Amino acid sequence: MTGRLAIVGLGPGAAELITPLASETLAAATDLVGYAPYLARVPDRPGQLRHASDNREELARAKQALDLAAAGKSVAVVSSGDPGVFAMASAVFEAIETGTQAWNDIEVIVVPGVSAMLAAAARIGAPLGHDFCVISLSDNLKPWDLVLKRLEAAVAGDFIIVLYNPASKARPWQLGDAFRLIARHRASSTPVIFARAVSRPDERIDITTLAGADAAQADMRTLIIIGSSATKLVSGGKGRRFVYTPRHAELVES
Amino acid sequence: MTGRLAIVGLGPGAAELITPLASETLAAATDLVGYAPYLARVPDRPGQLRHASDNREELARAKQALDLAAAGKSVAVVSSGDPGVFAMASAVFEAIETGTQAWNDIEVIVVPGVSAMLAAAARIGAPLGHDFCVISLSDNLKPWDLVLKRLEAAVAGDFIIVLYNPASKARPWQLGDAFRLIARHRASSTPVIFARAVSRPDERIDITTLAGADAAQADMRTLIIIGSSATKLVSGGKGRRFVYTPRHAELVES
Repeated sequence: MTGRLAIVGLGPGAAELITPLASETLAAATDLVGYAPYLARVPDRPGQLRHASDNREELARAKQALDLAAAGKSVAVVSSGDPGVFAMASAVFEAIETGTQAWNDIEVIVVPGVSAMLAAAARIGAPLGHDFCVISLSDNLKPWDLVLKRLEAAVAGDFIIVLYNPASKARPWQLGDAFRLIARHRASSTPVIFARAVSRPDERIDITTLAGADAAQADMRTLIIIGSSATKLVSGGKGRRFVYTPRHAELVES
Repeated sequence: MTGRLAIVGLGPGAAELITPLASETLAAATDLVGYAPYLARVPDRPGQLRHASDNREELARAKQALDLAAAGKSVAVVSSGDPGVFAMASAVFEAIETGTQAWNDIEVIVVPGVSAMLAAAARIGAPLGHDFCVISLSDNLKPWDLVLKRLEAAVAGDFIIVLYNPASKARPWQLGDAFRLIARHRASSTPVIFARAVSRPDERIDITTLAGADAAQADMRTLIIIGSSATKLVSGGKGRRFVYTPRHAELVES
């Protein structure tokens, strides 16, 4: 009677960035589980059940999906971007590890997707063209001191820095603190990208610098990319601007 | 007469992980440019020209593609995985910045893809479920001291570590050095994943630990993921093993 569970990455938003494997997996499911705005991206299919939930209920959502699979359903849990990067996959495996024996027998697959950082980078050039770090700025699930420690390490290593979850209504001050920490070590001309709702109809991408970056412009749908010492902001013809990090790098004291 | 240039991510290998946008862009091109094994993944189309090159000729390949586009062609430069992560996008923008004025007028788009690290992570659970660093271990384009500095920083920040380009015939010793550096700070039980040719017919994925990791098992088609202090290797029923990093994290002295 045991069913199966797929954790599916929908990509950043546009239908043309959903992989065929993700589309086929979604079409084959009896039950879809996920945060309501992500479920809304999946085309309706007759007979398919939808279980929408709030964004903060990741572990409860994982358990609900496992219960459905244990009852014989073919379940797809949807994530925006890639399900393995600050999304549902970790919650599902945590639920399996700590949950009932019945969940252990469920076939689980993860269907990767184009993550928000890759889609954002593609829209403005090649900022992730060299070594980079990916940090969630939220302290909902970790102490803020750990975020600071990781930002310090990322700066010490002269990494390009990608910030997920830079701000929310409950956490308006953290991105400004992060910018100030980084600005103590990096040039004020360092490129900074605000990428909001990439590939969605309301996409907005702003290219600025550490000196010009306004933390108040970020919200929970924004992703931030901060260049390394090597990252370049280039102005081309016809008002074109792009950001890229060269393939060559030198050792720079930070 | 100016054409256009698309830098296209083919994903890790399987056709079912190529996005519709990538497939459409490839189909619409008059000319395909890329490393021969990657071009071989793209279906033949009558009338479409192919320009295959060696893997080390990234900048020359970028310039060739820009010349074709400047002559009015619709060019697709192909990369495995995502073109922005240690692949062709950075080389193309470098060529534009440093090249002739004619190249500045070419319409350039980057089509993101499912990167090797996301596909590898999906095959074994959710190892990238928390903050992580991505480092190319090659010193072809940067000093080895910079690689060491970044590894030290990644360890200091207790990041999950993804290593691209861990080894080649000319660089057989670097991955062993990297493992030894990391093992000075992390538990010998830390999960380590060797993911080779993910989603290809010859895919091979080995889950081991820092104590058990054998650098000689890696080649230029292998990607390495090393857990943080929080990453767990879990043995489930039916011989199942998975690796995930919990969403919660604590501050750990490293």
